[in-house]
Amino acid sequence: MVHRFMYGCGYTEPTNMRVRTKAGREDLRAIWMDGDSVTAIDQRALPQKFKTIGIRTYPEMAEAISNMTVRGAPTIGAAAAYGMALAWKAGEDLDEAAKVIKATRPTAHDLFYAVDLMLSRRKGDLVKAAEAYADGVVTMCKSIGEHGSTLIEDGSRVLTHCNAGALATVDFGTALAPMRVAHRAGKKFFVYVDETRPRLQGAKLTAWELLNEGIDHAIIADNAAGHYMSRGQVDLVIVGADRIASNGDFANKIGTYEKAVLAKESGVPFYVAAPVSTFDFSLASGSGIIIEERSQDEVLFVGGRRISPEGSRAMNPAFDVTPARCVSGFITEMGVFRPGDFSALVRRH
Amino acid sequence: MVHRFMYGCGYTEPTNMRVRTKAGREDLRAIWMDGDSVTAIDQRALPQKFKTIGIRTYPEMAEAISNMTVRGAPTIGAAAAYGMALAWKAGEDLDEAAKVIKATRPTAHDLFYAVDLMLSRRKGDLVKAAEAYADGVVTMCKSIGEHGSTLIEDGSRVLTHCNAGALATVDFGTALAPMRVAHRAGKKFFVYVDETRPRLQGAKLTAWELLNEGIDHAIIADNAAGHYMSRGQVDLVIVGADRIASNGDFANKIGTYEKAVLAKESGVPFYVAAPVSTFDFSLASGSGIIIEERSQDEVLFVGGRRISPEGSRAMNPAFDVTPARCVSGFITEMGVFRPGDFSALVRRH
Repeated sequence: MVHRFMYGCGYTEPTNMRVRTKAGREDLRAIWMDGDSVTAIDQRALPQKFKTIGIRTYPEMAEAISNMTVRGAPTIGAAAAYGMALAWKAGEDLDEAAKVIKATRPTAHDLFYAVDLMLSRRKGDLVKAAEAYADGVVTMCKSIGEHGSTLIEDGSRVLTHCNAGALATVDFGTALAPMRVAHRAGKKFFVYVDETRPRLQGAKLTAWELLNEGIDHAIIADNAAGHYMSRGQVDLVIVGADRIASNGDFANKIGTYEKAVLAKESGVPFYVAAPVSTFDFSLASGSGIIIEERSQDEVLFVGGRRISPEGSRAMNPAFDVTPARCVSGFITEMGVFRPGDFSALVRRH
Repeated sequence: MVHRFMYGCGYTEPTNMRVRTKAGREDLRAIWMDGDSVTAIDQRALPQKFKTIGIRTYPEMAEAISNMTVRGAPTIGAAAAYGMALAWKAGEDLDEAAKVIKATRPTAHDLFYAVDLMLSRRKGDLVKAAEAYADGVVTMCKSIGEHGSTLIEDGSRVLTHCNAGALATVDFGTALAPMRVAHRAGKKFFVYVDETRPRLQGAKLTAWELLNEGIDHAIIADNAAGHYMSRGQVDLVIVGADRIASNGDFANKIGTYEKAVLAKESGVPFYVAAPVSTFDFSLASGSGIIIEERSQDEVLFVGGRRISPEGSRAMNPAFDVTPARCVSGFITEMGVFRPGDFSALVRRH
């Protein structure tokens, strides 16, 4: 099948998300363009059902970003780039397309970065530009994996929150990239997967990726992470990031701040894995990061079933901000950087 | 109806859990004895359905404790006392009954305390002894409410974890008792209700109690508690306890440790509300507290639906231990005590 990337099918490196489908094992990306349309893994259907959706217009792409069919900051960036490519191919107003795509989610820096990059390339071929952007994300993720894998040893017990895997990053992952690289290098280690309420991306997506990859893991309630850290049963935490400020404060999925404070309390190294594009040097600190408030139904219902009494309301911040003081290091495609040591990244940016 | 406690029906004080049923508003206890049987609110059916179950033998009581039809340390204590009363009334072997009832849950100190108390009263009328025990729990809870309510001010934003309410304590509550007293005194305040995965006792039971009581509240994912604390939007945390060691370390529902560390990080006062019977002065510290590991299905499924990929496993510790250094004070029926200042309690014990 043309739209499934197989080893050697036009890419210089094999893509790396292993998926067990009815057809056997396939290696896929989270999102890809093929002719006049884009195909994406429908992340809302996982882990019960593996299916893909076709996207033919930029408003459809905006909808797919907004309703979280595609999610994760780098995948959102690639989706935004492909959305601009669809608009360009159809001869649409690119400024209007940029506006619509940017209005989908407020927090992910990659979204704005990718749209602006496509606007700056509007004189050229935006399909090629979007493909190059997506390929670049994958290459970056692989580098993140190589730099980060040195932190994982035989016997390590790693904890992660939410899904910063291949699904979230076109391929390979950010927080999960070091684990993929370490696993393929033959290291034996164990991963605690925070289930990550309210949307359960850990229980649903990270567990699904680790299972497909063959990495030993167990899902835990978010409430149990601190318990295992306090007992010396966690050696390392690796999470992703949606936006990183100049001082090292960063936004990520709600609950990340809790795990970071708990890691500090127990002396557990806490790493953030993210491409350089996630850094937003226009922000001095995390206090400038806008936090998206999502529907209270994400808390009040699970799988369509109400878990709460009728009449009780919920509050549902989708992200939180973790202060730089809790971070041991940022694993990027350029290496591992401590907060306050970003000068090399600023030059690259 | 005889088995529903109404104002003045043989109790010197009105019971205080307000329940809206088809019959209108009723005031009930979580568990009560009436003739040859015990009736309990089925806490597994809440909040969708309000129903009670009848318990006629001590093995049925052991089952109700084990499967969490009744839950919460003080309610478990009363249930255990009633179970011993049922055994006594039926002329059963009390030592065997004690053994069976004690084998149901490993963590709640009240369970062992109540069974041993009944054994020490075996020469007398164990029905009367069990009734006195349950009444004593309610009286203690009301005192806890009175002492704790002084901590809540007009405009306070209080956070609680799990359910330490009337359902958990026969009536009135421990952590929720100060809120009931403050509310009835006319104070206006707001409660963040941690949903409390994996069993969701916050979203299901605490929200249900606050809704019935008319106290303003919102359910939040456990992951969001730290976010609100870090932003200065929480003034006070009050939780219950299942067992408190001599040094002030205490066991409570999984996730309590996380909230305590986060409260300390943000300078938010953190209080533990529990009757003196919850203290276990035979334990020097929290490291001696046995942590129950419950079925992984509580994490992998919600409401009978799998939320995780088939093939992924889970780990599910039911409790954690919070160190005394995180606790601002223990709200008991004898007043509020700081960790390290328990001499008055030891004398009473």
